[in-house]
Amino acid sequence: MDEERWAEGDVVSLLPVDGPVVVTRLARGPQRLGEAGVIDLGDQIGRPVGGEVQWLGQVYHAVRPSLADLLSTVRRMAQIVTLKDAAQLIALASVRPGARVAEAGAGSGALTVCLAHAVGPEGRVISYDRRGDFLEHARSNLARAGLSDRVEFRERDVGKHGFDATGFGSVILDLPEPWEVLGGAREALAPGGYVATYTPTYNQLERTVRGMRELHLAEVRALELIERGLHVGEGGTRPEFEMLGHTGFLAVGRRTG
Amino acid sequence: MDEERWAEGDVVSLLPVDGPVVVTRLARGPQRLGEAGVIDLGDQIGRPVGGEVQWLGQVYHAVRPSLADLLSTVRRMAQIVTLKDAAQLIALASVRPGARVAEAGAGSGALTVCLAHAVGPEGRVISYDRRGDFLEHARSNLARAGLSDRVEFRERDVGKHGFDATGFGSVILDLPEPWEVLGGAREALAPGGYVATYTPTYNQLERTVRGMRELHLAEVRALELIERGLHVGEGGTRPEFEMLGHTGFLAVGRRTG
Amino acid sequence: MDEERWAEGDVVSLLPVDGPVVVTRLARGPQRLGEAGVIDLGDQIGRPVGGEVQWLGQVYHAVRPSLADLLSTVRRMAQIVTLKDAAQLIALASVRPGARVAEAGAGSGALTVCLAHAVGPEGRVISYDRRGDFLEHARSNLARAGLSDRVEFRERDVGKHGFDATGFGSVILDLPEPWEVLGGAREALAPGGYVATYTPTYNQLERTVRGMRELHLAEVRALELIERGLHVGEGGTRPEFEMLGHTGFLAVGRRTG
Amino acid sequence: MDEERWAEGDVVSLLPVDGPVVVTRLARGPQRLGEAGVIDLGDQIGRPVGGEVQWLGQVYHAVRPSLADLLSTVRRMAQIVTLKDAAQLIALASVRPGARVAEAGAGSGALTVCLAHAVGPEGRVISYDRRGDFLEHARSNLARAGLSDRVEFRERDVGKHGFDATGFGSVILDLPEPWEVLGGAREALAPGGYVATYTPTYNQLERTVRGMRELHLAEVRALELIERGLHVGEGGTRPEFEMLGHTGFLAVGRRTG
Repeated sequence: MDEERWAEGDVVSLLPVDGPVVVTRLARGPQRLGEAGVIDLGDQIGRPVGGEVQWLGQVYHAVRPSLADLLSTVRRMAQIVTLKDAAQLIALASVRPGARVAEAGAGSGALTVCLAHAVGPEGRVISYDRRGDFLEHARSNLARAGLSDRVEFRERDVGKHGFDATGFGSVILDLPEPWEVLGGAREALAPGGYVATYTPTYNQLERTVRGMRELHLAEVRALELIERGLHVGEGGTRPEFEMLGHTGFLAVGRRTG
Repeated sequence: MDEERWAEGDVVSLLPVDGPVVVTRLARGPQRLGEAGVIDLGDQIGRPVGGEVQWLGQVYHAVRPSLADLLSTVRRMAQIVTLKDAAQLIALASVRPGARVAEAGAGSGALTVCLAHAVGPEGRVISYDRRGDFLEHARSNLARAGLSDRVEFRERDVGKHGFDATGFGSVILDLPEPWEVLGGAREALAPGGYVATYTPTYNQLERTVRGMRELHLAEVRALELIERGLHVGEGGTRPEFEMLGHTGFLAVGRRTG
Repeated sequence: MDEERWAEGDVVSLLPVDGPVVVTRLARGPQRLGEAGVIDLGDQIGRPVGGEVQWLGQVYHAVRPSLADLLSTVRRMAQIVTLKDAAQLIALASVRPGARVAEAGAGSGALTVCLAHAVGPEGRVISYDRRGDFLEHARSNLARAGLSDRVEFRERDVGKHGFDATGFGSVILDLPEPWEVLGGAREALAPGGYVATYTPTYNQLERTVRGMRELHLAEVRALELIERGLHVGEGGTRPEFEMLGHTGFLAVGRRTG
Repeated sequence: MDEERWAEGDVVSLLPVDGPVVVTRLARGPQRLGEAGVIDLGDQIGRPVGGEVQWLGQVYHAVRPSLADLLSTVRRMAQIVTLKDAAQLIALASVRPGARVAEAGAGSGALTVCLAHAVGPEGRVISYDRRGDFLEHARSNLARAGLSDRVEFRERDVGKHGFDATGFGSVILDLPEPWEVLGGAREALAPGGYVATYTPTYNQLERTVRGMRELHLAEVRALELIERGLHVGEGGTRPEFEMLGHTGFLAVGRRTG
């Protein structure tokens, strides 16, 4: 049933039996791959997704990249959203296949990758940032992930000028002063749509939640997700000693009318 | 742009300016709605999604249900998966629009709703359970959520007999003894696909992770997500006093070859 | 070696083989005990601590009350400090046997009980509160716990007037606006002594920590302790589902000069 | 009121106005102090605790070391107990000034330092370990902390041979297989006394709790404490990014008869 076939330019994950995935782009002719050498994937074009590739004496499966694979290709300018928080924002804001969602700011584009993955090929992400250099950086990350055709980047200070489109099912705010954008976000939402925010400090969260209430958003909630790794070892099972103590606080509200 | 229009049988969320959402089905003629009375939504058929409805002297917006709305319609036979865990399983297992995913067991169908939401109208969820009564219950929950056409229920003991299909991008196991199903899950996965599990005890997690390693699954990880609500009140902001201390442990592994 | 003997007026824990502890006072003549009936412990006077008592057909051991036993006797006017936080405050503020420590406010006296337990019979707790009714209530709780002779209650608004004594090794602040008391607390501390605070909101914690820094207190730290119960059941071990999501934030600083 | 005076051999904390504490021992004549140089504290002998000392052009206060100061002097052979867990074990096991408590094993002596601090000069800690080298190491750590006269070290395999004393109010087990020592610990406890354990894995915790139940210990509880640091910065307040994900699980039970 997985009768998809590779096309030139597709992003492909090369999966060894053992060791880390290598994510690259399907091109004709030899290309440099990491520090490991040169590969020519040209003969995969037209072949079924999931087939085998020989490279440097090892067998790889050539598969569609997973969300984790795609995130691993993102080059960071600043701290990027964690997968757990991206997944939660997507669930809280009810992002769904085929949806149009807005995002501000673009940041490094990691959250944009997750949103583009969640809306699928029929959906659309409009990503706003007031800084052109951030947009350029995010744009190149989305291109590397092969998701450019689902995303539109717009240079715009949505805090000052509001959004330039309406009817979004979800608006995600990943910027330092989300409360300044809430009014515009509300305008940009379709009735029933959600605005969700992501900020590191409780001070930001507090202003954001108060702002949501002033705008009479419904179903306002604030929360955080703490991820705890589990270690299954010879001697038994326990939580991991290493842990990220904090990522960010999430808030969400819904436009009712 | 949101030029979708209502069709008979659509699931609709009625959103008041204030107060909780009411989720129902678009039908011709009067229908009972909760304890609140009778409504006739027949004249919405053919109208644009997002319009206004008058009912009992109040204005409602009639909108497509959000994921949270859909989950609120699920009638529980047992403990159901939380939204945070469902979102994380979907992210870890890289469920995406248009994908074919397998789930065992069906339980009350809450996780099935989340999976069906994530794969979208082009995707497909095959949900296995060895108990026919569970399947019936889950089936009726999916019908109520209007997602039946994305889901196929199959009565089958996948621990004993394995899965009856292959090439899945993701297999999600929400059953008491996932280690007995891991071998079958691996067979059912396409190369590069993920199996993710959800279990309440350390003991189950330990056996599951060891089983994943024995099967040489890659990228094996175990973790839990702790959700902490934040309370923004008059006197300031603090974590909520009420909290669910535990839901379940997640494990994930990837088929490489 | 445990050759201690019971004296009239001692607080005693009656420990059944099965079931909850009963904490009472050693008196001559019959006394009512809970809903369970009447007991006469008079003949224990002069006997060794730890002996057996017959009551209502059951055998009890008469032992010195533990810290948990003592806390169970505290009648609450408001939320009381948890054992985990009391223990941590005591450790962070380096409360030790024989020490003189100050506390403001007295609250219901639960923290006072813990402090009195930690300083022992040679130590002394001075507990300040501006409200006479709170002091009366705390005083009666300390009497019930048999710790009155280690504690002195003083009606005083330490925020306005400062402390009326100096040279404390530890000052513990369990009041809504600790930042208003920090200056006075610093004056009341001996060099090398610690002031520790306990407040429920981020906002209070923030002002407190900033206040500590302005006073050039050393070793300033802020933290919280999250207690997670573990359930060991037939089916395995897991964190408890029930959990208190939040108690309070702790801050501590040290007077250097 | 703090009219204590320094005696030769006392452990002293030198507290600068700014910078870290230096913990040393009061001796006649010059002594090397860290990398910083040489100091002669001889003229402090007989002077009041808390006075000033000039050293390398800076003013220090010479004070009694706090619990944190003492723990900072412990040289580690292995992972040592954290302050939060030591404080909690002390509270759960109801260790109090003047008490006799037993500990097994001795480890590096960090927990021993905390216990010796909590029982005070009138109390006594008996610390068992089957390995002489551990005992030697712990002994030298207790000497450095100036607490040797409260602690007795005994080389003994309490798992095999049980304890060689009875009537303890508290027995603390910090060893890999506490369930093998529980029976002996119960015998060593006075009625009403507590045994508390500290182990890293859930597997150990599970066996320990089952063992406590088999011995009909009362008030059996299992829990862990998660410490989360708070960061108060320019931009606001948030949990610290760095965090220790796990230390150990605690269990406690009480001897009733």
